[in-house]
Amino acid sequence: MRHIMAARMADIEPFYAMQILARAKELEAVGKRVIHMEVGEPDFSTPQPIIDAGIEALKKHDMHYTPTIGIAALRDSIANFYRTRYGADVDPARIIVTPGASGALLLALGVLLSAGDEIILSDPGYPCYRQLVQLLDGKPINVPLGADTNYQLSAELINAHWKARTIAALVCSPSNPTGTSIPMAEMKKIVDVVTAKGGQLIVDEIYHGLTYGEDSDTALNITSDAFIVNSFSKYFQMTGWRLGWLVVPDAYRQEAAKLAQNVFLAPSTPAQYAALAAFRPETIEILEERRKEFEARRNFLLPALRDLGFKIPVTPTGAFYLYADCSAFSADSFAFAKDLLEEAYVAVTPGMDFGIHAPEKHIRFAYTTDIARLGEAVERIARFVGK
Amino acid sequence: MRHIMAARMADIEPFYAMQILARAKELEAVGKRVIHMEVGEPDFSTPQPIIDAGIEALKKHDMHYTPTIGIAALRDSIANFYRTRYGADVDPARIIVTPGASGALLLALGVLLSAGDEIILSDPGYPCYRQLVQLLDGKPINVPLGADTNYQLSAELINAHWKARTIAALVCSPSNPTGTSIPMAEMKKIVDVVTAKGGQLIVDEIYHGLTYGEDSDTALNITSDAFIVNSFSKYFQMTGWRLGWLVVPDAYRQEAAKLAQNVFLAPSTPAQYAALAAFRPETIEILEERRKEFEARRNFLLPALRDLGFKIPVTPTGAFYLYADCSAFSADSFAFAKDLLEEAYVAVTPGMDFGIHAPEKHIRFAYTTDIARLGEAVERIARFVGK
Repeated sequence: MRHIMAARMADIEPFYAMQILARAKELEAVGKRVIHMEVGEPDFSTPQPIIDAGIEALKKHDMHYTPTIGIAALRDSIANFYRTRYGADVDPARIIVTPGASGALLLALGVLLSAGDEIILSDPGYPCYRQLVQLLDGKPINVPLGADTNYQLSAELINAHWKARTIAALVCSPSNPTGTSIPMAEMKKIVDVVTAKGGQLIVDEIYHGLTYGEDSDTALNITSDAFIVNSFSKYFQMTGWRLGWLVVPDAYRQEAAKLAQNVFLAPSTPAQYAALAAFRPETIEILEERRKEFEARRNFLLPALRDLGFKIPVTPTGAFYLYADCSAFSADSFAFAKDLLEEAYVAVTPGMDFGIHAPEKHIRFAYTTDIARLGEAVERIARFVGK
Repeated sequence: MRHIMAARMADIEPFYAMQILARAKELEAVGKRVIHMEVGEPDFSTPQPIIDAGIEALKKHDMHYTPTIGIAALRDSIANFYRTRYGADVDPARIIVTPGASGALLLALGVLLSAGDEIILSDPGYPCYRQLVQLLDGKPINVPLGADTNYQLSAELINAHWKARTIAALVCSPSNPTGTSIPMAEMKKIVDVVTAKGGQLIVDEIYHGLTYGEDSDTALNITSDAFIVNSFSKYFQMTGWRLGWLVVPDAYRQEAAKLAQNVFLAPSTPAQYAALAAFRPETIEILEERRKEFEARRNFLLPALRDLGFKIPVTPTGAFYLYADCSAFSADSFAFAKDLLEEAYVAVTPGMDFGIHAPEKHIRFAYTTDIARLGEAVERIARFVGK
């Protein structure tokens, strides 16, 4: 048969981190001890209460399809979490449980974007945003961000980049890859400017809970008119279960559910029952301990990398990433990442995974490994850059 | 904020079966005993060996992300299943494990369809095909099918409906909603005509294993150049786990994996480990027993409905559906389905879920309930239609 390829595929890029990971595994296969700082998932296992709830569910339930938008008990638990943690009142009818934040993003973008529509994204930013927009034949507007706005979109930037075909903006706070957040005062202005433009706003809160020295607030406390993405993957450390959720504005409930029905049928049954235990006090206790560990890692790694000559002008306060300017050592961050792996056995993610704005100057370090290993990584990097 | 809606949403329809199901639940809530024949999933629970493997996995593994295309052990097991059950030699590197057949379809359509491209589909057919095509801004060509071609696409029909913008055809054998299959000789001709047209072919084999009086053969024994969709949901009865797979032609491996990376990240970790037990002899033994039970149900229900005056001109040999012409009783099958539910408490799916070709004449019965209940359903329907 003829080789037919959808036009969009030329624009959808692979994760370069995967190339690094594949090479790292080759090196490990020949006995090298690689330190992994390229992986965007917590190194911790899923907390035991969640595992136990999963096992109980497998014993008790038949594992049939659940309703498309998720079981009522879980949507109620999520609404209750918004109430107790944020003081936000969210109607469970607005919550759609999805296969990961990826599923939530696909739904939100799917109901909003017509072919050719533009959406404002941060650059650097999470690569899948751009790729999902392109899957739907929309057009990502990658706004170059720097230290002056904490590597975050602002109301001013959104206003400046909004054009005739722009229909929405997507912000992520705390951000991947920079770990920086949008202050609530700024988020309020963003809501106002998007409203004034007659557009829609998607807020990705997937790294909520993983903040250091501050607590995240949800955009739901500003507006019930935005799409809010979240997940059980990061703070709740359920990556492999593939479970997230989307809070939709009231007017989009039926359409988003209709799309979910057709694209996913339903989220994972065992994952949903397991996730019921995610909000229990004994689970939250484990998660808050681990949050402290992440904070300790950041507090160790950030000054160590700055001392070596990496430029990290804004102190990241969330997620588990440091986005570092490595131009003191190389004009090509992809080559730098590859050499660092080949020569020092430290795996990091090259900037080109996160956008087109100065990717060659940046690499991302994930502190998803313990402090002893991070210490060893710093030593290896020091030798590699000749310090 | 302004109410923005993607243009595609107007074309994407909900499952009308869901309206029936919702009303059925209301009736049950006020004490009515509804017989459910609208549900497209096996009534059996996931086989115990699979449940046990899931529990073991939760005890043993950390539930982190797996590789995007799935764990090697599962892809090897699937390849081995093709070898032992079908005598087909499939390179595991061509197998991508996905979140259900839904995920497999999204990947296949995503790498093939550019905006505006046409794809040939069967009408009646599984509704999500059309909706996923529309999600990707492609155009479904719904070919009206009748008893003369077993309610299946044929090489001749594909040839007749192929136009300048057509790039692919999608066939499903055995079919939802008709339970009919495409003979291998015809499948060979379909491959030939699609090849001659310079197009691509997607074959949905999700109901494989659930055939009665015959065994399914896979299109992989005809060509390694088509996209083959399958799932752990139906024959393996793992619906709620959301796990399926896609076999891609060699030339699409990297692009399909790239898309999977961006849309799903990875399939469910617990589901993958559980599914390793799906191919074990003790599981297959359970599944083959259940297959006999489905066959007994079909053998009971098919003549009973024909006796009542439903027209089912082709004997379905697979899946768990009977697609019946109910025009002897009503000129509006949706109204018929609603009345049948309100008055006889029997839930069925109206034809409008499956296409635009004579939906008002048809309803789908799913025999996903035991023979005693099916017998009661037949009695209720008989009273309802005045027999």
